[in-house]
Amino acid sequence: MFPKNAWYVACTPQEIDGKPLGRKVCNEAIVFYRQADGSPAAVEDFCPHRGAPLSLGYVSDGKLVCGYHGLEMGCDGKTIAMPGQRVRGFPCIKSFAVLERHGFIWVWPGDKDQADPALLPALHWADDPEWAYGGGYYHVKADYRLMVDNLMDLTHETYVHSTSIGQKEIDETPCVTKVDGDHVTTSRFMSDLPEAPPFWKMALRGHGLPDDQRVDRWQVCHFTPPSHVMIEVGVALAGHGGKDAPADKKVYAVVVDFITPETETSHHYFWGMARHFKPQDPALTLAIREGQAKVFGEDLQMLERQQANISQWPERKLLMLNIDAGGMQSRRVMERVLAAEQAAAADRLAGASAAELSQ
Amino acid sequence: MFPKNAWYVACTPQEIDGKPLGRKVCNEAIVFYRQADGSPAAVEDFCPHRGAPLSLGYVSDGKLVCGYHGLEMGCDGKTIAMPGQRVRGFPCIKSFAVLERHGFIWVWPGDKDQADPALLPALHWADDPEWAYGGGYYHVKADYRLMVDNLMDLTHETYVHSTSIGQKEIDETPCVTKVDGDHVTTSRFMSDLPEAPPFWKMALRGHGLPDDQRVDRWQVCHFTPPSHVMIEVGVALAGHGGKDAPADKKVYAVVVDFITPETETSHHYFWGMARHFKPQDPALTLAIREGQAKVFGEDLQMLERQQANISQWPERKLLMLNIDAGGMQSRRVMERVLAAEQAAAADRLAGASAAELSQ
Amino acid sequence: MFPKNAWYVACTPQEIDGKPLGRKVCNEAIVFYRQADGSPAAVEDFCPHRGAPLSLGYVSDGKLVCGYHGLEMGCDGKTIAMPGQRVRGFPCIKSFAVLERHGFIWVWPGDKDQADPALLPALHWADDPEWAYGGGYYHVKADYRLMVDNLMDLTHETYVHSTSIGQKEIDETPCVTKVDGDHVTTSRFMSDLPEAPPFWKMALRGHGLPDDQRVDRWQVCHFTPPSHVMIEVGVALAGHGGKDAPADKKVYAVVVDFITPETETSHHYFWGMARHFKPQDPALTLAIREGQAKVFGEDLQMLERQQANISQWPERKLLMLNIDAGGMQSRRVMERVLAAEQAAAADRLAGASAAELSQ
Repeated sequence: MFPKNAWYVACTPQEIDGKPLGRKVCNEAIVFYRQADGSPAAVEDFCPHRGAPLSLGYVSDGKLVCGYHGLEMGCDGKTIAMPGQRVRGFPCIKSFAVLERHGFIWVWPGDKDQADPALLPALHWADDPEWAYGGGYYHVKADYRLMVDNLMDLTHETYVHSTSIGQKEIDETPCVTKVDGDHVTTSRFMSDLPEAPPFWKMALRGHGLPDDQRVDRWQVCHFTPPSHVMIEVGVALAGHGGKDAPADKKVYAVVVDFITPETETSHHYFWGMARHFKPQDPALTLAIREGQAKVFGEDLQMLERQQANISQWPERKLLMLNIDAGGMQSRRVMERVLAAEQAAAADRLAGASAAELSQ
Repeated sequence: MFPKNAWYVACTPQEIDGKPLGRKVCNEAIVFYRQADGSPAAVEDFCPHRGAPLSLGYVSDGKLVCGYHGLEMGCDGKTIAMPGQRVRGFPCIKSFAVLERHGFIWVWPGDKDQADPALLPALHWADDPEWAYGGGYYHVKADYRLMVDNLMDLTHETYVHSTSIGQKEIDETPCVTKVDGDHVTTSRFMSDLPEAPPFWKMALRGHGLPDDQRVDRWQVCHFTPPSHVMIEVGVALAGHGGKDAPADKKVYAVVVDFITPETETSHHYFWGMARHFKPQDPALTLAIREGQAKVFGEDLQMLERQQANISQWPERKLLMLNIDAGGMQSRRVMERVLAAEQAAAADRLAGASAAELSQ
Repeated sequence: MFPKNAWYVACTPQEIDGKPLGRKVCNEAIVFYRQADGSPAAVEDFCPHRGAPLSLGYVSDGKLVCGYHGLEMGCDGKTIAMPGQRVRGFPCIKSFAVLERHGFIWVWPGDKDQADPALLPALHWADDPEWAYGGGYYHVKADYRLMVDNLMDLTHETYVHSTSIGQKEIDETPCVTKVDGDHVTTSRFMSDLPEAPPFWKMALRGHGLPDDQRVDRWQVCHFTPPSHVMIEVGVALAGHGGKDAPADKKVYAVVVDFITPETETSHHYFWGMARHFKPQDPALTLAIREGQAKVFGEDLQMLERQQANISQWPERKLLMLNIDAGGMQSRRVMERVLAAEQAAAADRLAGASAAELSQ
């Protein structure tokens, strides 16, 4: 259950530098590669000749070449050429709308005609030199919605990430969830904590601030469809206004989470952090990235085992507590988006039939 | 096919020291842990909040805490507390009767109300300082009844364990199987053998007896429901009365086998040896344990491949020879016990309906 | 889909030296071993006693002994003996026609009565001291017909084997496919190439010929049922007659491919090369074998991923181009052979019924 008419992060730009990449997105087996002008292309990972995966081939002069018998595939799914063959009658394979933007390759796994670049999310930090970004990728064998749940309820930090970003005060502080159209926000503001947890101590030091003082801390999780979660996080020296403290009293950042369904029970997880402090410090970027890799790695086993339990007992009802409101509201948005997509598809079908009848 | 209203060995005491243990018994996914008073507890391995496995959590002050969002589960399957939540309305999960006795943790995977500690098997050697016990655990991907077959017919020792306890005389000596109620016994007495096999030579030396003389040898296998097999084994210097020889002319022991179904085609195998000689010699305990680990390890591949063959050809009839009588009779007992369990369940159901009707 | 009344290569002679070998051929689980006179035998890998795989046993005085309880199995599928048992009433297991010839063990997985040694392929090079043979084995998780396709169309060498035997001229030169009864031939003759590819340069040097001159090159692929592919390959110094050049101007060999179905989607691949030059040079045999192992290893991933794609989209039609004619025609022969086998089986069944009726 996932909308297909939406932009998902498919991969990072480096993953298609010089070679094709095979990746399944929303149950579509796709091969991604770069064309001669550097722009990305995406077609089905299935050679129309004998069914070989095109991702085992190579890219030559910006054209995707099948590694089995040399068929050259076009970015539109039409075969361009094949040694010794006339290819005009070759069947087409699917092609997909794909874009490079904000440091990611984005794919629209559904109806190509509806793919509108204007629908890409705006990431204000992505092209701003005052911000720095670092991130990574995990493959997770769990329904992508379990990851949305996970990120829209940071209570779990206390338990899953007890040695890095967790602290007791998180689950002692109530969170507030709001829905504004398709935008879901879950906020938690913690005031005057005795100290920051280890990850934030490192960030404070990185920003030239003391790491042994009382702090205010905040987490504001933003869900937008299809499944993007951006979390404003930060700590400020206590008593300076928290999230609104002046820049030299706080460290803050955006935790970036692009969650791309692979199948019904697995997803691609692109995680990272965009920070507003010391953007020119690549060693800090690396240190934060390593810290995050460890933190997000701690979630994987929990989510995969949770998925296994849910798959085994599909009929068991799960609880929906106040801390789950962020995930719940996000799921409602996803369901609404999907229902709209299905209704539109039915309408187009009906329209097509009517057009046929009127001829 | 296994009775569920019975005591099975779930784990060893050490497996739940300081941390929960997730283990499936008779198709029930269970988490085992120790309470504050040290007594074991067992509940479903499924957090009622979001389905996370509780065995990924931890034990704090004898309470089981979910590792995802900190829910505290009680030993009765009722949630005790959860940070920031009222838990009274939370759905219960199953809890199981569980006991620590004789050096093992025992679980009753069926109806908790019927769990009677008096039904635990008596293990005379378990708390007797004149005896010593050592053992281990294997996970086996085979129907637990194949292991009962294996242990109730020791003919296979000649072939599977040819370098340790096997010897040609075993399958040359007929065995005798007797049934007494639910107790099945298969006995084999071998007289005046030229020598003992390697494992028993080690035991003779360990007991201060010569290892190069003619011996009498015996194996008396006892099956009791649900699936426990105890084997009296020993060798005596020849001509002193065999099993009835005086203590200084023989070495003897009990091979202990607790066979706990996991699923229809896999089981937990707790094996060990309780011996009556040199009980205060921990090095000997270790040496015997290592020898047994090797011996029982030799059975695993055979049983797992046998299971694979049987799963592939479920319709093929297997032979029931005289040497198979022990396993056959044990299976009949298991079937009778299971039928009684099912009949009792039907009776209770009918009784409940009648009670309803009479209101 | 594979004919079963045919000779397939089951294994190499060394694989059954001193021990039984369990291998599935055409969906039949078979254990192969050597009898006392050295001749091979093949029976079902299923002990009639308790279903243990006989291949876990051992061979004693040329008799196959079950490793579980010592049952001795005869080469005809009848139990010979078992310790302490009368075996006359034991059920038979299947036995299979099996032969050692030309350096291979051959099995006829179908009706034993129809197995005719005269139907074994003649391999002129196998027992000729002027030829040398070296080869190896791969297990491939793909329909065996994909391997036939692969070998009856060497266009793929340009792409899959670009660093060893591939060269651009291969797919620029059309191939010609001919069918003569059950024998399919695909030929490609390349004239006056600027140079030989790396593998053939090594062969030229091995034969004492220069490796930096213009060459003629040829590939003549022969398919014969059930699934054998022999490929005459070679290069000659340009201008001496190509394939017909005198022996001191060319190097040539036969690429030997025995493709034995295991299941519908996996096969055993016995590959090798029989060469006519320097037959007494075992170091050259080894060097060629290593080269081939690398070359054929390159095909495996492609075929296994191609199979995965085909299994996922079974309804998608594949193209049949001129370069695919060799594989296509070979598949037609296989279909014809299979249809004849099924018709004959139906006839025998009808005949048996008629005979019954007439009694």
